[in-house]
Amino acid sequence: MAVQTVASTSPTDSPADSPAGSSGSAEPSLGAAVALSCRECGTRTALGPHFVCLECFGPLEVAYELPAGDPAGLRERIEAGPASMWRYAPLLPVPADVAAKPNLNPGFTPLVQADRLAAELGVTGGLYVKDDSGNPTHSFKDRPVAIALEAARAFGLTTLSCSSTGNLAGAVGAAASRAGLRSCVFIPDGLEQSKVVMAAVYGGDLVAIDGTYDDVNRFCSELIGDPLGEGWGFTNVNLRPFYAEGSKTLAYEICEQLGWRLPDQIVIPVASGCQLVKIDKGLRELIALGLVEEKPYRIFAAQAEGCAPVSRAFKDGSDVRPVKQPDTIAKSLAIGDPADGPYVIDICKRTGGAVDDVDDAQIVDSIRLLARTEGVFAETAGGVTLGVTRKLIASGALDPALSTVVLNTGDGLKTLDAVAPTARPSAVIAPSLAAFRDAGLA
Amino acid sequence: MAVQTVASTSPTDSPADSPAGSSGSAEPSLGAAVALSCRECGTRTALGPHFVCLECFGPLEVAYELPAGDPAGLRERIEAGPASMWRYAPLLPVPADVAAKPNLNPGFTPLVQADRLAAELGVTGGLYVKDDSGNPTHSFKDRPVAIALEAARAFGLTTLSCSSTGNLAGAVGAAASRAGLRSCVFIPDGLEQSKVVMAAVYGGDLVAIDGTYDDVNRFCSELIGDPLGEGWGFTNVNLRPFYAEGSKTLAYEICEQLGWRLPDQIVIPVASGCQLVKIDKGLRELIALGLVEEKPYRIFAAQAEGCAPVSRAFKDGSDVRPVKQPDTIAKSLAIGDPADGPYVIDICKRTGGAVDDVDDAQIVDSIRLLARTEGVFAETAGGVTLGVTRKLIASGALDPALSTVVLNTGDGLKTLDAVAPTARPSAVIAPSLAAFRDAGLA
Ligand SMILES: [Zn+2]
Ligand SMILES: [Zn+2]
Repeated sequence: MAVQTVASTSPTDSPADSPAGSSGSAEPSLGAAVALSCRECGTRTALGPHFVCLECFGPLEVAYELPAGDPAGLRERIEAGPASMWRYAPLLPVPADVAAKPNLNPGFTPLVQADRLAAELGVTGGLYVKDDSGNPTHSFKDRPVAIALEAARAFGLTTLSCSSTGNLAGAVGAAASRAGLRSCVFIPDGLEQSKVVMAAVYGGDLVAIDGTYDDVNRFCSELIGDPLGEGWGFTNVNLRPFYAEGSKTLAYEICEQLGWRLPDQIVIPVASGCQLVKIDKGLRELIALGLVEEKPYRIFAAQAEGCAPVSRAFKDGSDVRPVKQPDTIAKSLAIGDPADGPYVIDICKRTGGAVDDVDDAQIVDSIRLLARTEGVFAETAGGVTLGVTRKLIASGALDPALSTVVLNTGDGLKTLDAVAPTARPSAVIAPSLAAFRDAGLA
Repeated sequence: MAVQTVASTSPTDSPADSPAGSSGSAEPSLGAAVALSCRECGTRTALGPHFVCLECFGPLEVAYELPAGDPAGLRERIEAGPASMWRYAPLLPVPADVAAKPNLNPGFTPLVQADRLAAELGVTGGLYVKDDSGNPTHSFKDRPVAIALEAARAFGLTTLSCSSTGNLAGAVGAAASRAGLRSCVFIPDGLEQSKVVMAAVYGGDLVAIDGTYDDVNRFCSELIGDPLGEGWGFTNVNLRPFYAEGSKTLAYEICEQLGWRLPDQIVIPVASGCQLVKIDKGLRELIALGLVEEKPYRIFAAQAEGCAPVSRAFKDGSDVRPVKQPDTIAKSLAIGDPADGPYVIDICKRTGGAVDDVDDAQIVDSIRLLARTEGVFAETAGGVTLGVTRKLIASGALDPALSTVVLNTGDGLKTLDAVAPTARPSAVIAPSLAAFRDAGLA
């Protein structure tokens, strides 16, 4: 978790926002970001709350002029930065003074050297758990939301919004409140009370929509095109090009925490697939900038059996076909029609990785294994990732002699119901030494 | 949250454990700790799993030979240390290489500069929230447990244990699992399922005792004296002198994060009172070592009205009288007979502070205020502390023109029920722009 030092001591204050003086003074200052660029046809457009290419309707992403040429100096500058994702501000679409603004300072979460887990799994090349439950609202979503917040501020937007059934709602509500922006979060009506509480407690507007999650998303798309939605930033729609960049920081942190080295293998959970694509992008940026030495790395993707469109397409060699009715306890991964599914398959194939899936029982068993060996209590998505890691070791797809990083994206406190049936007392006894002796636990 | 770097890069490796070569080689090495000393009669005894003075039955505490004489060098050494409580290893009863051992690396949590909250409360001298929900199991308990774990290892104990109804159970289970020690946690039978899950998920033994929390404690005391309990370390009983020192690190962090300055005022929740006593001790150590400049500071204590023995004694000028039936939503503070109650009153009087209490409605309102202004979701104990802060500002006991630190000791995810009745959707609407317009939220 980020340490928020007082503003006057912020180590990221630096004179220039962008190494290349590329934009006029009227354009918002977002550090090394210089434009939005179409992922399909390459057409560029100015930085703004846009997400679709006007030429070909392809998705837009952020284009940078990154600070090349002095890797040793850049490493030093990063290491002297704050203990949050803002240490990588020179590589992100954020202003240089981002750490001095009120925000949740997510990131720089623990990379846990998991020796006890490694021994159980027979991994000899080094096993690490990147534990993003340490973020302010206890999921990796704090990272992309923090970048979306900076974009919203830069573009003069006043309401931060999203559709969500879980982690994102809390991340948006908390970030907006801390920054003094209004938030308005849309959820399908009838969610479990605990999720409603986590979405509502930050005091922004929470609107329950009488319909399915698809209805909620359709409504949000309409709202963006309507005058009612003027001044609104939807983290996962019109701010998506910025939002998506947040996941790059996971790649940066893993490599820095390994001593500026690439891991040999990374296992990443897949919902929309965006996170995996951006982690790969982050690794390639580190290589291009000379911050790490180039070497092969393998990326593996993990899904839940009850919603495994990418895993099935990878195994069948077919296109990604949507799953109509996801059915898994890993609800944060239950996106039936993953936008970045084809990119995920490309990356796993290109790097020599694989995609696989596990069922609910394997998810729960892996949550418990991680807690028992390393004291890390993961949400169901973390159980998916570790479960698939175990399956890939068993199949030989994942090499236990290589260094391996497993990503835990959220906190077990958010999905308590998944382990409740099995996490129970070993014994119930009377308050006496005799009763304790009889229970056979001494 | 601590960043776990790999062992080889640990910045706390240093040649000597203790600055004074005070102990023979047979004695366990616990850094600057040299003995246990009776808080009542001063009698010293060797370091070990002991908690009661054999002369007068007074409580034992850790005695140190601290690294005096070079405050600038010590500050530099601390600042170069890991982003966890182990940066203060030279001031703690732990081995110098503690950060390289498998543990949860708690501490160095955010000190949030709470400008929006300050504006609402009319605080002009600077308001900060020390947010200990950022610890690995999301409460301050990870700090004392981490120290108790090192003591257990040093004394060759193999089972880490405690009695608990909440935060402590999870902290002990997680720390023991990470370290590869056995854990056995005792709880009263019939706790809410969520608390049972958090205690059981780390895979140690969890024993439910058919009785009250008092019965559980009585049973644990018997177990310590019995051969069945040989090799057992109870964090809050026979390891208590070590365990208790963990709270000193909150004082260290607050001052370092303020730029090595004492705050003018600190508001601290009171359960047993141990945490407040140790924070005061930590502040006095920093002054004695020359790490901060001496100046007056005021300590304020916060309790829940439904269990306010210390607050009542402070207001009445009477002795601390036990509360038989605590009745408050702040269950983590519901200790009816607080062992350190008289010390808390002494410290608040000595420093010019005060003790006060708030009711359940004020606790919930303060949880929501903190979430709405700063994006920090506190557990009920955090609501108590902020609620009392507001009350003390209103009464004039707390000076809004002075710098003020409010302690949040745990995470709102652990006490969701407290805010569930009020944290609800602003509106439930059909999925249409017309319905949204009619709701009046645009
Ligand atoms: Zn295009
Ligand atoms: Zn004594």
